[in-house]
Amino acid sequence: MTRIRIGIVGYGNLGRGVIEGLKHCDDMDLIAVFTRRDPDAIGLDSSEINLYHISKIDEFIENIDVIILCGSSKRDILDQAPKIARCYNTVDCFDNHGLILDYWKKMDKICKCNQHVSIISTGWDPGLFSINRLIAESILPDGETYTFWGKGVSQGHSDAVKKITGVKKAVQYTIPNEKMLSSIKAGKKVSYQTKTAHSRLVYVVLEDGADKDQIEEEIINMEGYFKGYETKVNFIDEKTFNKNHLAMPHGGKVIRQAKTSDLNKSIYEFSLNLDSNPQFTASVAIASARAAYRLSQENSFGAKTLVDIPISYLSSRTREDILKNMM
Amino acid sequence: MTRIRIGIVGYGNLGRGVIEGLKHCDDMDLIAVFTRRDPDAIGLDSSEINLYHISKIDEFIENIDVIILCGSSKRDILDQAPKIARCYNTVDCFDNHGLILDYWKKMDKICKCNQHVSIISTGWDPGLFSINRLIAESILPDGETYTFWGKGVSQGHSDAVKKITGVKKAVQYTIPNEKMLSSIKAGKKVSYQTKTAHSRLVYVVLEDGADKDQIEEEIINMEGYFKGYETKVNFIDEKTFNKNHLAMPHGGKVIRQAKTSDLNKSIYEFSLNLDSNPQFTASVAIASARAAYRLSQENSFGAKTLVDIPISYLSSRTREDILKNMM
Repeated sequence: MTRIRIGIVGYGNLGRGVIEGLKHCDDMDLIAVFTRRDPDAIGLDSSEINLYHISKIDEFIENIDVIILCGSSKRDILDQAPKIARCYNTVDCFDNHGLILDYWKKMDKICKCNQHVSIISTGWDPGLFSINRLIAESILPDGETYTFWGKGVSQGHSDAVKKITGVKKAVQYTIPNEKMLSSIKAGKKVSYQTKTAHSRLVYVVLEDGADKDQIEEEIINMEGYFKGYETKVNFIDEKTFNKNHLAMPHGGKVIRQAKTSDLNKSIYEFSLNLDSNPQFTASVAIASARAAYRLSQENSFGAKTLVDIPISYLSSRTREDILKNMM
Repeated sequence: MTRIRIGIVGYGNLGRGVIEGLKHCDDMDLIAVFTRRDPDAIGLDSSEINLYHISKIDEFIENIDVIILCGSSKRDILDQAPKIARCYNTVDCFDNHGLILDYWKKMDKICKCNQHVSIISTGWDPGLFSINRLIAESILPDGETYTFWGKGVSQGHSDAVKKITGVKKAVQYTIPNEKMLSSIKAGKKVSYQTKTAHSRLVYVVLEDGADKDQIEEEIINMEGYFKGYETKVNFIDEKTFNKNHLAMPHGGKVIRQAKTSDLNKSIYEFSLNLDSNPQFTASVAIASARAAYRLSQENSFGAKTLVDIPISYLSSRTREDILKNMM
């Protein structure tokens, strides 16, 4: 078995998830992790991980097969990916759904010019959820697809609450509407809107002297984040916060409710329940790196998403092994 | 949009499912249905469906893009598919898991020699369940995958009961062990064996004068079908049978319980709940025919399974449409 040599850009939650995930993959080696920070200041045990400043990345062209981009979709990927794809095959978890088409167009040109492969927007939504939305609709044209998120931590919503003056710490859990979910699974008609299909649960630690009622009002009425949602705000002390709310669980469901004839319904459901959102997202990126390597070996250059790749490319099993043991 | 011209071989439950499913696909036309029976004796309204004897199949080479093989995996496919793949692209739902590797090898040679595409073993198990077993394992190497079937009618088990002397009608439902399922979803360790993970529920209509107790004994102890399973046999009258037990519901789940680190678990679940097993299986075959057509247009000849094909090939949406609306 050829070993795949992996590089990581970004030493945050996702990057650390990739480092952890690679321990379970016996066909891959972690060659280097690149960071914008001062590697010495991070204080890593360098016997385990080779941490370099991002400025050194071009020195590894001969030694790395695929770079997994673990920066933020908001701040880093759109800037870093086009540069790095000139020299490397890449995988990322870019998750701004509305920008994926434009991002793909740009990356596809760069990849084709430079004979590289970039698998963009891996992870679970976009990613595994996209695969399932597309399979479900292709197989069951006469139906409706619903996506539910949670129960889980939304980083974006947590950050929005943290920015309010007087908030010391905050976390926001997105909660799916279980009653609506049950109705869909039972084949009943529902009126789904993202806002009625989910509620929001917020835990806040206040700064000393902060005005609780005012902060609660500000959260509940925040446009684009909480307004229109059923939102519950709980104020807790810092000790309780640190004990119960530092984990990053998430999950969700894609459900298609469809008819295969006037009389017969089909319910198609894909569901994830994750103790660690960044570790699971990293696991999808790692399997995608395997596919990126294989596509590059076949000279199938360009930018792709998970729906453009045979599922077997995510696996280290041979074709015969798959046909014998996995069908 | 190019229209795809479809032929069907076999006018049983699956073939009728394909006919029904094609009504919902506006990129496909049903050209002809071929049967081994006498078409005139079937008494179809020929204004709707063009039914021909199977001996006429070679006359349609210029007019059909993909033939969907709807015969039995036990009796028909291994015999028909190699012959038909010489002249046509084909799709089938061959479901004898242990024979798939050999069948693929044979079909792959024939397809490559004759410049055709055959997508074999579509449907849900093998098919969608295979896709999910492979994705789940590729992403989450440190874990265990479980397959549950039901609640649903097993044709093989129903047929086995029907063969017993004194049985007039019979149906067998496979029932998943809900307690074990809940434990797996909760991340608990379980001792899974197919026999403890499922029970069997049988409804029998007796012939006049048949020995109830003896038949029950015979069912419960049938090797390879019921022995070792928790089996419950209910004797009912024919009227009740015809009222409640003529439908063919089925479904099942693929669940992977895995660790992304020592502390964190991930539960990956894919689930189907189907009022009509043959109609849903047919729907998967129809989407696969779309992929077979596209692969043949790209000269990507050979035999494939659903894990060898980009998911986007199942869809009639363009790449840009998918990137914009389905990610």
